[in-house]
Amino acid sequence: MNATHTIGSENSSYLARGPVAVLGAGTIGAGWAAFFALRGLEVRVFNTSEDAQGLVLQTLERARPTMQALGLLSESPTVPRVTTDIAQAVAGATHIQEALPENLELKHRIYKMVEASADSNAIIASSSSGLQPSELQAGLRHPERLLIAHPSNPPYLMPLVEIVGGTLTAPWALDEAEAFYQALGKQTVRLRREVTGHLVNRLQAALWREAVHLVSNGYASVADVDRVITQGLGARWAVCGPHEIFHLSGGDDGMAGFLDRLGPAVKTWWADLGEPVLDEATCKALVDGMAEAAEGKTYAQMAEERDRRVIPVIAASRG
Amino acid sequence: MNATHTIGSENSSYLARGPVAVLGAGTIGAGWAAFFALRGLEVRVFNTSEDAQGLVLQTLERARPTMQALGLLSESPTVPRVTTDIAQAVAGATHIQEALPENLELKHRIYKMVEASADSNAIIASSSSGLQPSELQAGLRHPERLLIAHPSNPPYLMPLVEIVGGTLTAPWALDEAEAFYQALGKQTVRLRREVTGHLVNRLQAALWREAVHLVSNGYASVADVDRVITQGLGARWAVCGPHEIFHLSGGDDGMAGFLDRLGPAVKTWWADLGEPVLDEATCKALVDGMAEAAEGKTYAQMAEERDRRVIPVIAASRG
Repeated sequence: MNATHTIGSENSSYLARGPVAVLGAGTIGAGWAAFFALRGLEVRVFNTSEDAQGLVLQTLERARPTMQALGLLSESPTVPRVTTDIAQAVAGATHIQEALPENLELKHRIYKMVEASADSNAIIASSSSGLQPSELQAGLRHPERLLIAHPSNPPYLMPLVEIVGGTLTAPWALDEAEAFYQALGKQTVRLRREVTGHLVNRLQAALWREAVHLVSNGYASVADVDRVITQGLGARWAVCGPHEIFHLSGGDDGMAGFLDRLGPAVKTWWADLGEPVLDEATCKALVDGMAEAAEGKTYAQMAEERDRRVIPVIAASRG
Repeated sequence: MNATHTIGSENSSYLARGPVAVLGAGTIGAGWAAFFALRGLEVRVFNTSEDAQGLVLQTLERARPTMQALGLLSESPTVPRVTTDIAQAVAGATHIQEALPENLELKHRIYKMVEASADSNAIIASSSSGLQPSELQAGLRHPERLLIAHPSNPPYLMPLVEIVGGTLTAPWALDEAEAFYQALGKQTVRLRREVTGHLVNRLQAALWREAVHLVSNGYASVADVDRVITQGLGARWAVCGPHEIFHLSGGDDGMAGFLDRLGPAVKTWWADLGEPVLDEATCKALVDGMAEAAEGKTYAQMAEERDRRVIPVIAASRG
């Protein structure tokens, strides 16, 4: 690890660092800005339009009670400053969290502007879920400090940050980014190498694929498939991952016992899993089924309910 | 619905019913027996060996604080009575919960004995996760009252019961079983038709398949893949199913907006999902990775920790 980048795990040491820059003020950018500001860091948000100020402040107010409930609200929270001047946003920043639209050409263009004004050892952490670090860092003057740090959404609520470097990312940059997020209270997972969708999106896509298959083949309704997850699986997954669950199903022999006794059943299930296609009929079944499941609730009502109900679950799952 | 089987949702009405018989006293049978007894029902457990008494009472004591924490402990809990006399177990029972080993021939043999002594309108609910209701009910004198009611394990902790009938199951039997479990505080989901693994095991298998792929291909450790679930996905899945999560990702346009904007990304992820094989190398990677993740904890320690930590999450997810 680069000595000039050492971060301790105590609040004082990361608060003593320079400001954080957030690039982009969409849902993810505004969520990151709220998280960093409510953890007490100085935050500058770059956005091409001044209009971003509204969403950033609105997100900050939504995040405040959430972070308080999770015990993450700083005693001296700040308010993010939004600017259309990228040089002003990144000058002197030690951590630059990029949350621009998923457009490689756009990101490369902005990175060039960042490199013109940022310290050469500032970390550039992209929130991208769809692009890979090796393609993002291609052409940078300092590709070694670029990595992906992909949050679960919203970043001020879900603890996870997936960290993955490209072929040119320096180990010190990965170490430093990981220490930074951990010091802020995040749970980090570091991928050993890049893979399409990282980990969260792949796992989520795998579960949803079968969920879609069960609906599109008429085995159960959208609402019922969702209830199977919330009532039969989700609470366990909030405290035990799927490997551990099967390890515990194996009794005293653990995973080996599970594979021995239940491996054949798993193979049968794997062989029978669906490979649905998102064609017109399937999309219609999903849209109609979801409309029925929503029981007339609006987006705002459902999103509010989700956040309100997830907070105590996250708090409980830490116990 | 058969008039003699009407059950209200108030405690008094289902408590006024006849006793419950549980067939088999393995983990699932003992778990069901504990659940029914602690909900205040008279419970008789049939098992071929008297030794079952130990596990049944031990499970009852483990379940008691759990059900108390979930607000499900009856004011007048009972103690299950274990018998090796099947006629005695099922005589006069209104609900027969079968939890025998997953062996079709064995189950058919026992069902024959059940039909010789049970009331002809008693529900026979099999806990089978691997067999289908149509094969279970073949050859019964009263196939119309046989169905599958598959719990999430342990039955006294996880709320879900999946209900699925075979081609010969009568609608009144499905209605009655569903009302019975609901009156006891369970969340029921009814499948529209039978499918290998029902819903829970298929969804669980789909998630685990990708989790195995990520480990066997060296993208991340067993422990890190599990942490991605617990820290980035599980808490949300305890309150929102995967369809609803994507519906909310679509903003005001809901599922239609999500499919429009993120459908292409999902297709890319689906196309890239792994199809691992449980060969020697993969099993070794899972066993070794799990041993490392367990950090020396024994089965008993980990199982105790899981149950202790899941209870407040389930309690919180109901809010």
